[in-house]
Amino acid sequence: MSGDSVKESVSLEVLRQKMKDFAQERGWEPHHTPRNLLLALVGEMGELSEIFQWKGEVERGLPNWKEEEKVHLGEELSDVLLYLIQLSDSCGIDLSQVALRKLHLNALKYPVNK
Amino acid sequence: MSGDSVKESVSLEVLRQKMKDFAQERGWEPHHTPRNLLLALVGEMGELSEIFQWKGEVERGLPNWKEEEKVHLGEELSDVLLYLIQLSDSCGIDLSQVALRKLHLNALKYPVNK
Amino acid sequence: MSGDSVKESVSLEVLRQKMKDFAQERGWEPHHTPRNLLLALVGEMGELSEIFQWKGEVERGLPNWKEEEKVHLGEELSDVLLYLIQLSDSCGIDLSQVALRKLHLNALKYPVNK
Amino acid sequence: MSGDSVKESVSLEVLRQKMKDFAQERGWEPHHTPRNLLLALVGEMGELSEIFQWKGEVERGLPNWKEEEKVHLGEELSDVLLYLIQLSDSCGIDLSQVALRKLHLNALKYPVNK
Repeated sequence: MSGDSVKESVSLEVLRQKMKDFAQERGWEPHHTPRNLLLALVGEMGELSEIFQWKGEVERGLPNWKEEEKVHLGEELSDVLLYLIQLSDSCGIDLSQVALRKLHLNALKYPVNK
Repeated sequence: MSGDSVKESVSLEVLRQKMKDFAQERGWEPHHTPRNLLLALVGEMGELSEIFQWKGEVERGLPNWKEEEKVHLGEELSDVLLYLIQLSDSCGIDLSQVALRKLHLNALKYPVNK
Repeated sequence: MSGDSVKESVSLEVLRQKMKDFAQERGWEPHHTPRNLLLALVGEMGELSEIFQWKGEVERGLPNWKEEEKVHLGEELSDVLLYLIQLSDSCGIDLSQVALRKLHLNALKYPVNK
Repeated sequence: MSGDSVKESVSLEVLRQKMKDFAQERGWEPHHTPRNLLLALVGEMGELSEIFQWKGEVERGLPNWKEEEKVHLGEELSDVLLYLIQLSDSCGIDLSQVALRKLHLNALKYPVNK
């Protein structure tokens, strides 16, 4: 099976379009102003932080976490991502383009020592 | 060429791989623990918020913003995205998969009224 | 009664001592490391932001808010304050002293135009 | 002088009044709406987090930190406090009273095990 060997990945543009349709179908667009979405994003960052707050240092890959904690973490990471995409969209900013540009700027700012 | 008319979009997986290579080439990986990256993400959220802090309500599309402000905003949105991707990666969580799953859960949680 | 006419106010030192006793009595001190408390603080900032997220611009004094919303807001503002005090304490920083010093620095940085 | 032996502490009400005067003297009050101050607070939370972001776990009392880092930390803790006080004030909420009430609620919620 050819498809199985390729890790499926989603593009920012696909997520943007899905979120836009989602909000439109529910009549939520009037609420999706930049500062409303920004505060919603801050709210989700808080929920993400709460998962880590009493854990002390956490090892890469979360070796000692329960499956349900990882599922919860995935949901909060997603919420941050989805509001970030909606915030960018509400500002008329193409997140794909600016992220690629930022990667380029970072490479110039932090050259590799050889 | 037909491709020109299609808006280029980047996948989360491509950004993840680019960030991973970037950190590896610079020897930064030892610092990229989950809680370090989480705090870096909170730091970027703060920089993003500062752009909006004295503006009062902001209209969709940022009609009255200067070009340089929009460029700055794009950079901060990117920084949030890039740390979010790195945080997910450091936790061993596939952000594409959990985001698609969350969209599905949201659709179940908030059915469209017809 | 003379006391009634004076608005009661609490000092940061009193709150610090109360929080310290509270944690000690419950055996919570081992969890109160600087980064744990910092992430708890970020979590509370998120809960505070959620109260404001779908409200659009909000007028000073919250004239149209329900009493229960104001009570909730008071609780979240308090949570931010109490974790901030505990974070400062865990770092060995006297919040009263640094706040007074910062007010002094701010006055130098932003002189009054006459 | 007897006063020297007592640790000076500042009340929230004194800080509130100082911040109010400070803003008034500079004509900043029109900008001090609840959501503007909330976003400024989030911005300062970000600056506070940046101090801790690459440090891994941090010991209580910051035994290995340079003096200048502690001074910087004190400034960021202060900025969070001062915006929190201003946000409360802009909302017409008496932070002293709600904090004392929250301490009382916490004591009821988390009784001491004997």
